Amino acid sequence: MTTTTYTVRGMTCGHCVSSIKEEVSEVTGVSGVEVELATGRMTVTARDRLDDGAVKAAVEAAGYEVVAPS
Amino acid sequence: MTTTTYTVRGMTCGHCVSSIKEEVSEVTGVSGVEVELATGRMTVTARDRLDDGAVKAAVEAAGYEVVAPS
Repeated sequence: MTTTTYTVRGMTCGHCVSSIKEEVSEVTGVSGVEVELATGRMTVTARDRLDDGAVKAAVEAAGYEVVAPS
Repeated sequence: MTTTTYTVRGMTCGHCVSSIKEEVSEVTGVSGVEVELATGRMTVTARDRLDDGAVKAAVEAAGYEVVAPS
């Protein structure tokens, strides 16, 4: 089990949070996604190793940007 | 055919626009809904008379507020 924290830029409302959760949840191995709108903080839990590039791609597919793994 | 314009408060992104369009489209008689995020301007086209209260209720159901018919 691994937990990785990212900072996401561009979210403005709860709908944005839902879109990101939906996309990132579909990344292979991901077992949980928490997103905090106010800070942009996203915490991703994975069963094994997490593919960082796939997480960033999922966030971008939702229309947002990962500023930095933090 | 009638066209009524409203001002909606509280939208922050394209998802908000979609939510409102979806709810207002379901109001009886409505044939078209245009929403402009930047200004909050919503234009509703109806086949006959438009039930103003139903439009406001639909916007509220989506989680937003009609400031004024404008």
